[in-house]
Amino acid sequence: MTGVPHQKWWGWGVEGVAFNHRDKPKMAPFVLERVGIDLDAPGSPPPRFEDVDVPASRLGEDLAATLGSAVGEDHVSTDDLERVVHTYGKGLVDLVRVRAGMLPRVPDVVVYPGDEDEVRAVLDAVVAADAVLIPFGGGSNIAGSLTPPPEEERVVVSLDLGRLNRVLEIDEAAGLARIQAGVQGPDMEEQLQARGWTMGHQPDSFRHSTLGGWIATRSSGMQSDKYGDIADITRGLRMVQPGKVVVLRPLPSTSSGPSVREMILGSEGRLGVITEAWVQVHRVPENRDIIAYLYPSWAAALAAMQEISTSDAAPTVTRVSDANETAFSFSTQKESQGVSRKVQTVLFDVLERRGWDLDAVCLSYVGYEGGAGKVKAEKAIVGKIVRKHGGIKLGRGPGALYDQKKFDTPYIRDFLLDIGGLADVSETATPWSKLLDIYNGTVRAAHEAFDGIGVRGFIMCHLSHSYHSGACLYFTFAFAPGVQDPEQQIERYWVVKRAIQQTFVDMDGTISHHHGVGTDHAHWLEQDISSAGTDIMVSLLHGVDPGRNLNPGKVLPANRER
Amino acid sequence: MTGVPHQKWWGWGVEGVAFNHRDKPKMAPFVLERVGIDLDAPGSPPPRFEDVDVPASRLGEDLAATLGSAVGEDHVSTDDLERVVHTYGKGLVDLVRVRAGMLPRVPDVVVYPGDEDEVRAVLDAVVAADAVLIPFGGGSNIAGSLTPPPEEERVVVSLDLGRLNRVLEIDEAAGLARIQAGVQGPDMEEQLQARGWTMGHQPDSFRHSTLGGWIATRSSGMQSDKYGDIADITRGLRMVQPGKVVVLRPLPSTSSGPSVREMILGSEGRLGVITEAWVQVHRVPENRDIIAYLYPSWAAALAAMQEISTSDAAPTVTRVSDANETAFSFSTQKESQGVSRKVQTVLFDVLERRGWDLDAVCLSYVGYEGGAGKVKAEKAIVGKIVRKHGGIKLGRGPGALYDQKKFDTPYIRDFLLDIGGLADVSETATPWSKLLDIYNGTVRAAHEAFDGIGVRGFIMCHLSHSYHSGACLYFTFAFAPGVQDPEQQIERYWVVKRAIQQTFVDMDGTISHHHGVGTDHAHWLEQDISSAGTDIMVSLLHGVDPGRNLNPGKVLPANRER
Repeated sequence: MTGVPHQKWWGWGVEGVAFNHRDKPKMAPFVLERVGIDLDAPGSPPPRFEDVDVPASRLGEDLAATLGSAVGEDHVSTDDLERVVHTYGKGLVDLVRVRAGMLPRVPDVVVYPGDEDEVRAVLDAVVAADAVLIPFGGGSNIAGSLTPPPEEERVVVSLDLGRLNRVLEIDEAAGLARIQAGVQGPDMEEQLQARGWTMGHQPDSFRHSTLGGWIATRSSGMQSDKYGDIADITRGLRMVQPGKVVVLRPLPSTSSGPSVREMILGSEGRLGVITEAWVQVHRVPENRDIIAYLYPSWAAALAAMQEISTSDAAPTVTRVSDANETAFSFSTQKESQGVSRKVQTVLFDVLERRGWDLDAVCLSYVGYEGGAGKVKAEKAIVGKIVRKHGGIKLGRGPGALYDQKKFDTPYIRDFLLDIGGLADVSETATPWSKLLDIYNGTVRAAHEAFDGIGVRGFIMCHLSHSYHSGACLYFTFAFAPGVQDPEQQIERYWVVKRAIQQTFVDMDGTISHHHGVGTDHAHWLEQDISSAGTDIMVSLLHGVDPGRNLNPGKVLPANRER
Repeated sequence: MTGVPHQKWWGWGVEGVAFNHRDKPKMAPFVLERVGIDLDAPGSPPPRFEDVDVPASRLGEDLAATLGSAVGEDHVSTDDLERVVHTYGKGLVDLVRVRAGMLPRVPDVVVYPGDEDEVRAVLDAVVAADAVLIPFGGGSNIAGSLTPPPEEERVVVSLDLGRLNRVLEIDEAAGLARIQAGVQGPDMEEQLQARGWTMGHQPDSFRHSTLGGWIATRSSGMQSDKYGDIADITRGLRMVQPGKVVVLRPLPSTSSGPSVREMILGSEGRLGVITEAWVQVHRVPENRDIIAYLYPSWAAALAAMQEISTSDAAPTVTRVSDANETAFSFSTQKESQGVSRKVQTVLFDVLERRGWDLDAVCLSYVGYEGGAGKVKAEKAIVGKIVRKHGGIKLGRGPGALYDQKKFDTPYIRDFLLDIGGLADVSETATPWSKLLDIYNGTVRAAHEAFDGIGVRGFIMCHLSHSYHSGACLYFTFAFAPGVQDPEQQIERYWVVKRAIQQTFVDMDGTISHHHGVGTDHAHWLEQDISSAGTDIMVSLLHGVDPGRNLNPGKVLPANRER
């Protein structure tokens, strides 16, 4: 009807694409041994939409008519499937709930505006009717930012920005592009690269997330070391509010008081609807290389990464996996790709003879871009640091493979759910000096949580972004919950997730480096930015939206909502 | 009494230091011809404090007693000189007013807290008494951020942070230092460099400005291309508010909602009092070089700077002066220094034979830091770009001289005032694509303003910071106002300043790149960040400080104050 692509209503990505472990012979034994999940167990079939009981829409005739005249009746839908697609993001709890048909509150209507004027008309109608508006991009959020509060009694309107999907102009002299907020990653890059430009922003969700979503949640991508987090990339924007539009022109920098741009970044729909942004774009680089390295230990790897971050090299990607993630990653290789089995065996023999503990090996990727001279010089600097910390270079092959496969990981979670396993992610950022402690603390807390609920569990981690003063640690955890009931599964999931998040704030990390706050991380906001800092946020959000019509319940902890 | 250093009550910098043109033989003829000011005219002597009529303090006994017990009676002053020192920053209008003894509203008391607890006690007492608190750092502000509103009837307390002047700790593993907000630039760098570290932040005001002041106004320094603007450097901070303290731990990056850190940056005392910050520090670099280049024209220079900003080079300083500033700068050289007269004559002969228009020549400085390999490679990249745009390298000599003299410029303004000349600065930032237009527009607008008031005037400019998408243009303008009366001088000054600021916002620039808003730029805030954007700022500032006790009247335009 609208031409806007949607993910599976019950899982990640597009219909027909799924994770498959059959061509990865080492994976099933690894997962069985380490996570306690049998990948060869019979999986449940995908849920059938006809089995789902969708609550009736509460949309009244008046608002329906106003919305229809705002965007055209073809672009207003109260269809059950549409409404369910717009109920959840793709967090673990979202997936468990939607698969189980747990739908306490579903948007009453989905609206697809075609331009900013239509967004304005919709928002004005929503506020006039004292309804609630939730902006929706690619639906890939994993922090609970998209879900209507279960207790919300007012009409809930999901505003899908998917028709606002064009690169509007490129200012070639300034390296800036004006782009509509609803465009998804691949579509945007295709439009940019057709003209020789790239934004260089590659979050894991790239294929199913939008520019507006990245801005609204402070996204970061795997090349952010070079291209910057979305907060750096976004130089100007337009945001629709009731009766008006915030217009921030593109500026390289400014000292015009507290930064309104930085208030809108991360606002998750609570200040208005972002309709377009001016973002930094770059010429597609001359050379682009991702090189793999191995370190003998996690401590050595972290020390090397810190040294790289203060060196004269400025890589585009700095990533290193802990021993668990390294082992997992080797176990998921196809026979014929990456570090092929033979090479791997020979290599590991050599390393073992050198005294490496093969269970402690950590795999790293470092990306390089630019002119040949720069890339060569930076590889030399990094190579020296790697060797200083006892590491070795593996070369281009595994890096290239990583680069091709980097967006496929989220499919694994659905596959695990099919066979009764739960997996999710939590990420933080902290100064270099705290990194090893917070890592150890988090792993310990997760295992205590697994023990507490009496399950075997697995947690692995990678360092995914480096800054001058610190880095992001990205944890993935998985376990077989040992219960079938979805409510009980969610309860057990939260025991683990809570333990991890609490460790983050207790050990000087932030609640999230790039996934946003939503409802899932809001509980720890005061521990992250302090109670007085939260008061400032409350002043801002409630001051701008006194009627709580704009995605209420997100970002702030429940006790800070009116 | 307190040991806190202050600038001259009537001008820039320290007593006994003044600008002198006698050893710069080409300067007086240049200024006479181009600006219309005779540097050899008899100058007025510095004003005498005994001639100044200082309004009596309105401090009542109760608040006086509370403040005394909060910080100790030795650290509370109602002395006239102290109060006058804390009345103004060092903008042109400030200087004209203070020299003329124009003091419509002077702080009623100056308080010097010794630690954060004392700041809390003072702030709580001020709010309990419904008084007004204005934080004061080095007193170098030039946007009107320090001055009590003339109509303010409540007691005004100036909170001088000068005793909070210590580097508290350095996290060597993370490259972070925790530093008290009241420390001045040289003192801070001395403490850091004694331990082998530097913050690398060098605003023109460096010698007389403080860390807290930099944060409160979103300062930028001449090495910000490498070290970042203060917004990048500041990773965490503490800010005292009535009854509480905002604590933002140092984080390399975070997605915890709208950025409270970025709300405090640039807040100019309206959200509370910044007491300390975690800032990024760096090892003192192995090599540091500033190389001078000459371009045949401003357009060629800007094009080269843009190309450098997207190249593989990452210089620490990128600066180029327009033809007027280049000529001024050559005219202020001592005979024996820099590009010596003989070399200069020979060089200019050569350039003239090559067809250069010597009146259009633009002088540029580019700074390099890092290992020998990086510096060499970057010089090669920059050198190639310079040549491509018709420029030539002058070498190290002038760069080193610039580096030594860079903090002396503000003294010239006082010298000009002595002989009846007015000079001030305005700076903006805009995308590369708009830079030449906004430059031409600003020069034209200034000259139209000079013509309108019937004076000869001079405006010169340099590009002072480069970003991926644009740059900062920093204008200096001067004229002989042709009137003696300070009110009339100020009126004429505003004709010029207004014309420049209006051009900035009309031509897609910001109201200030790094001087802040204060009262002087507030009029254009809505034109910069839009009316709806200003509404957001109003929600924030009034929501946090409903009683308007915290530096009221700053940042927001007058019609947006309650």
